[in-house]
Amino acid sequence: MAKLVALYKKPANAAAFDAYYYRTHITIAKTVPGLRRYEVSARPITTLQGESPYHLVAILSFDSMEAIQQALASPQGQATAADLANFAQAGVELLVFESKEV
Amino acid sequence: MAKLVALYKKPANAAAFDAYYYRTHITIAKTVPGLRRYEVSARPITTLQGESPYHLVAILSFDSMEAIQQALASPQGQATAADLANFAQAGVELLVFESKEV
Repeated sequence: MAKLVALYKKPANAAAFDAYYYRTHITIAKTVPGLRRYEVSARPITTLQGESPYHLVAILSFDSMEAIQQALASPQGQATAADLANFAQAGVELLVFESKEV
Repeated sequence: MAKLVALYKKPANAAAFDAYYYRTHITIAKTVPGLRRYEVSARPITTLQGESPYHLVAILSFDSMEAIQQALASPQGQATAADLANFAQAGVELLVFESKEV
């Protein structure tokens, strides 16, 4: 498997972020070819130390790193990446890696 | 479902980190009650912008937030948390959240 983990920093307007994310961004992201599983965090995200700097975490699973590369290069992947500018102004870290169950 | 995501910063000695993580930490962490799935990133972790500040990402899945709280409070959870001091000196972010598939 391979994963794309999106760590969204806390937005200025959480309600507007959530409305856009759930009504629009998920719909666009789900069109990406090769997406096997799409999990999204509920609020709040906590750390063992207390409050987290992150508002939302999304974990997108694919069959392989090659599948992620193809997904990101596809028109749907490009549209999903371009859509970040519409709601993720506070910043997002996008981590991509191969994963295995241990 | 609920998840505990561990984001390990890059260590001074990657080989020593990996040896300890794979030989010792996974064994301890797998004793935690309620753990349903334990996924670990392979190297490298990349970002869309380039190199990532993280060396390893672990995603631990549980049935619920209550199950994570019980896991963290258990002797096995306490031992797993205490073991971080043995290899995660460069820092680790531990994020806990409820998750759902969308």
